[in-house]
Amino acid sequence: MINGRYARLGKVRSVIRELFEYGNARKAQIGEDKVFDFSLGNPSVPPPEELNAAIADLIANTDAVTLHGYTSAQGAYDVRKSVADYITKTFGATVDPDCIYMTCGAAAAITITLCALCNAGDEVITFVPYFPEYAVFSAQAGAKLVPVKTAEDTFSLDFGALRAALTDKTKAVIMNSPNNPAGIVYSAEEIQKLCDILAEHSRKIGQSVYLISDEPYRELVYDGVEVPYVMNFYKNSIVCYSFSKSLSVPGERIGYIAVNGLAQDREDIYAAVCGAGRSLGYVCAPSLLQRLAARLIGKTSNISAYKANRDRLCSALESFGFSVVKPQGAFYLFVKSPEADANAFAERAKKYELLLVPGDDFGCKGYVRIAYCRNFFSSSINVFASLNSL
Amino acid sequence: MINGRYARLGKVRSVIRELFEYGNARKAQIGEDKVFDFSLGNPSVPPPEELNAAIADLIANTDAVTLHGYTSAQGAYDVRKSVADYITKTFGATVDPDCIYMTCGAAAAITITLCALCNAGDEVITFVPYFPEYAVFSAQAGAKLVPVKTAEDTFSLDFGALRAALTDKTKAVIMNSPNNPAGIVYSAEEIQKLCDILAEHSRKIGQSVYLISDEPYRELVYDGVEVPYVMNFYKNSIVCYSFSKSLSVPGERIGYIAVNGLAQDREDIYAAVCGAGRSLGYVCAPSLLQRLAARLIGKTSNISAYKANRDRLCSALESFGFSVVKPQGAFYLFVKSPEADANAFAERAKKYELLLVPGDDFGCKGYVRIAYCRNFFSSSINVFASLNSL
Repeated sequence: MINGRYARLGKVRSVIRELFEYGNARKAQIGEDKVFDFSLGNPSVPPPEELNAAIADLIANTDAVTLHGYTSAQGAYDVRKSVADYITKTFGATVDPDCIYMTCGAAAAITITLCALCNAGDEVITFVPYFPEYAVFSAQAGAKLVPVKTAEDTFSLDFGALRAALTDKTKAVIMNSPNNPAGIVYSAEEIQKLCDILAEHSRKIGQSVYLISDEPYRELVYDGVEVPYVMNFYKNSIVCYSFSKSLSVPGERIGYIAVNGLAQDREDIYAAVCGAGRSLGYVCAPSLLQRLAARLIGKTSNISAYKANRDRLCSALESFGFSVVKPQGAFYLFVKSPEADANAFAERAKKYELLLVPGDDFGCKGYVRIAYCRNFFSSSINVFASLNSL
Repeated sequence: MINGRYARLGKVRSVIRELFEYGNARKAQIGEDKVFDFSLGNPSVPPPEELNAAIADLIANTDAVTLHGYTSAQGAYDVRKSVADYITKTFGATVDPDCIYMTCGAAAAITITLCALCNAGDEVITFVPYFPEYAVFSAQAGAKLVPVKTAEDTFSLDFGALRAALTDKTKAVIMNSPNNPAGIVYSAEEIQKLCDILAEHSRKIGQSVYLISDEPYRELVYDGVEVPYVMNFYKNSIVCYSFSKSLSVPGERIGYIAVNGLAQDREDIYAAVCGAGRSLGYVCAPSLLQRLAARLIGKTSNISAYKANRDRLCSALESFGFSVVKPQGAFYLFVKSPEADANAFAERAKKYELLLVPGDDFGCKGYVRIAYCRNFFSSSINVFASLNSL
């Protein structure tokens, strides 16, 4: 009698969330340092020092009624201006404050964007491996998520597979670089080719295919890798950004949607974004957090710990006989399970108190995701050795 | 090609938001104190002093990674426990932490609740005058909002009209007491009768009709009026609460859904709430604000200014010849327009820089809403005199 789809979604939590809850319960039972929890992308590095200082300054020196009061639905003007100016200055893209819509994090940004763009029956393409909640958000927008395979082992884009997946119902493509769960970063050449194909297909079907870039990990890159900015490659593009990982504030839910100022129908797209946000119950992104994000834009937590974790984990796993593609960004390693059934492997790992996310929900069977944004590293790495030798 | 419904919702803002934006632009033109902006329910009373002190204490004395990290999707356990304990202690209702789902304010709470309960084609009843966004949120849930008339002038419930509106598609009733826009508070007798009718109808159609109580104004009552707690009258009830008005933090978007612990299928309802929140892109309510709400639960801003405003405005308007029903709660006055067309009246008021919301969107033609939660009172009251005498 109540809504069955939502009841099922509430009962069957995402595999990641399920492990997160399991890990929390297990830690309470046997101790925080006894559970090797690589399940959730919850940053272990504290926010930059400026963050708490900025909160203190905001509450001390802003009129409380203004600070905690409603902003415009799309975000306070000065906050949107800060974001637009930052994007223009940093990436040379064409955006102004009326391209920016502040959101409660990237999940809200993607859901709102998909709702704004899609009609019932539309298709949304993404590339494996992909963040599993894309399927949930697409369904919310009445659209079907179409996962497209990528090159085995390297996960680089497979343009033949992309071409084969495009139909006259394709409304959007979601790309996620640096990628969760594989940590890969698409090169400028790959993005250019992707955009050429989307432009060609848009002409062919006589309607725009939008490129949505999901970028919570933009700043988390290693060894000087560049993350190209999609707006410079494709007019009909929308960036969904979150401050969760760059500032280590995933629980605060603050991010934005940036509609390319050069997009055809940019005003209609922006209006639909505003309308979808309104309809989904987002009155405005939290005011204090909007202002905080504007103050800290461009700053990042000290991510050197993630790089150290990556290097250590990759070489340890290789030495234990795992097959590893070294990630260029984010804080995930997507590694081949030593047994074909990654779920069985993850269950076996659990017996060693090691929490890994099986890759099936990311659209890749036979892999597990290791979120290496965590502490307690030394004791946990050897557990992998025992696992692979079994 | 993009989603037409959302594009329209984004272009045609709610009348309230439209006036809010107009007011902001006008203030920038002619000065803050020259615009008599009674449009938005944006509290003018600062938050309680404890609020900023609690923020300062949280950032100084909580581990930053925990404070700003993900919480469980339904909210941090200790926060939900504080809310459940408060409800149990204050109202004697039966709730536990697994009845509580923390939300980004009341709009999110209502949208999520309606999505959780409704299937396509369901009907949701509410009573005029009503908050216009109920229609948007119902549509998001695939349901149709059915406004039911109330007694003329007093807006007390009309049980005959309610009975006539109930069908086998009725899934829920939204009540809002203290009411936006009329400030009325339903008595225990009225609520008991409403609940008896819903229970009887549920038996008749063989499925539950849920009672949703939208309560952002619960603490804003005057002259010792009591606001009965619906869970004590009806098992299949859900409370949607926001801290926006009680703590003067409407921009921060923090509130909760409380499912009655005695509800039939309470676990299914709660699961559907979690599933709807997930699907709509709410990963968790902002962590800092969750913890802040838990610390301040039961506290309120100093609302004596609202009472003073109400008393002064009511007597002034009566002396100018307006017909006034004195509100018992909230900070709105819903007053008969001196001309039949309230839109024309509100337009005329605008010429005096007086911003009033015409009542049509609240389901009552011929009325305007005056949000008296504002400053600059002295100079503005006389404008009403000029208006009525025209």
